[in-house]
Amino acid sequence: MGKTTANAEGSRRFRLVLEYDGIGFHGFQWQKTQRTVQSELETALARLLTDEGIRVIGAGRTDAGAHALGQVVHFTSATKLPAEALMRGLNALLPADVAVREAKEVDSTFHARYRACSREYRYTILNRKAPSPLKRYYAYHFQVPLDVAVMDEACQELIGEHDLAAFSGKTTRNPVRRILSARCWREEELVFFEVVGTAFLPQMVRTVAGTILWVGVGKLDRDGFRMVLQSRDRALAGPTLPAHGLCLMQVNYE
Amino acid sequence: MGKTTANAEGSRRFRLVLEYDGIGFHGFQWQKTQRTVQSELETALARLLTDEGIRVIGAGRTDAGAHALGQVVHFTSATKLPAEALMRGLNALLPADVAVREAKEVDSTFHARYRACSREYRYTILNRKAPSPLKRYYAYHFQVPLDVAVMDEACQELIGEHDLAAFSGKTTRNPVRRILSARCWREEELVFFEVVGTAFLPQMVRTVAGTILWVGVGKLDRDGFRMVLQSRDRALAGPTLPAHGLCLMQVNYE
Repeated sequence: MGKTTANAEGSRRFRLVLEYDGIGFHGFQWQKTQRTVQSELETALARLLTDEGIRVIGAGRTDAGAHALGQVVHFTSATKLPAEALMRGLNALLPADVAVREAKEVDSTFHARYRACSREYRYTILNRKAPSPLKRYYAYHFQVPLDVAVMDEACQELIGEHDLAAFSGKTTRNPVRRILSARCWREEELVFFEVVGTAFLPQMVRTVAGTILWVGVGKLDRDGFRMVLQSRDRALAGPTLPAHGLCLMQVNYE
Repeated sequence: MGKTTANAEGSRRFRLVLEYDGIGFHGFQWQKTQRTVQSELETALARLLTDEGIRVIGAGRTDAGAHALGQVVHFTSATKLPAEALMRGLNALLPADVAVREAKEVDSTFHARYRACSREYRYTILNRKAPSPLKRYYAYHFQVPLDVAVMDEACQELIGEHDLAAFSGKTTRNPVRRILSARCWREEELVFFEVVGTAFLPQMVRTVAGTILWVGVGKLDRDGFRMVLQSRDRALAGPTLPAHGLCLMQVNYE
């Protein structure tokens, strides 16, 4: 547990790491009429810490249907509970498709979103003829054999600072993002695409994955992939792959 | 594809490897009023090969709620379809929680059950404080830290031919079975118990896993585990762990 940093009202700040199965959620972020991770978490917090209307702040939104192994949120509360008890209490109250993996008290300057220096996403493709009953909610099924070596090479084009408008689900005022690493590899019948960046545009990881998939079937080569990226034209990129193959693996802080 | 072996009626024999998510099934074996893997498969076969009332024979029953990555079945049919088309057709007709991973034509002497020389099962334990939304249907959650090294050592007691009545869910005429290998290991927060044997008694893998779990928390040592095995007394063994942690990994043939 971090040191206690009380402010005028004796409030403390907590950092939680969340895992969730995105199938039953309309994404992380609160919505008026839809079930979201944020609303389930805030409901559980309201029950555990009865006196407070706590709002949590997440490191980032995740798409409806996408999973997380390491979403990070913070909130402030005047509770006297140690972080460990908070975690136990929340896990007893939360539905089975979301859980707190870690809880710790942090300095009041910690901010889950603004202090995050990078986010790591993984997209999983089941690359075989038969569908997989055991992975059907966690991997996108694609039957044509993928050339993972050329996919991995094309990934190198992503690294660095780019205007990534070609891969964005909607127009963004500033579509420039910094990608720190990107790679593809195979483990038996599963193909993984993993990307680490300072931040991402809406649907970007799924659209990059769809374009890298084109590389894997020979529809684009590395040069073609770079041209799509440089075009800033969404019409030239591949499909936005389904959300159930996507997982927010972790969020990194300094 | 294997060679065609026609009998008097021109029938051919096929071997299928099945994967299924056991959560929605009352086990593999046909039951009058319950949803089972066998009944779903036979329904799909009846639709694909319209003229026939095909019965499939599985390598073994699996418990209600237990999964399979490599269940093997066989059946005979006068169909003209190649095995590859059978697989595609069945996967188009089957519900999402069962799939055919492999299909091939085999000699008429092949028998999924009687020709099987061993079966391999894996039991998966999530060994951490927080529950896992993404593994909740595929791993048994156990919070107390397990000593996997001593569990693995105790596993050695299982190897060889034994009267395994202590681990059987019901009285069996001949409870002697041959265990070929048994081991435990950890991969981060997951602990695996894997056992290969010529055959198994009802609930045996889950009850051995529950007794090995006692070893992992120090309630039994290796000698104690051996004494439970030798006692042939179910009352001395550990709990039968939940079926959702169990998976039939593969069935081996000569």
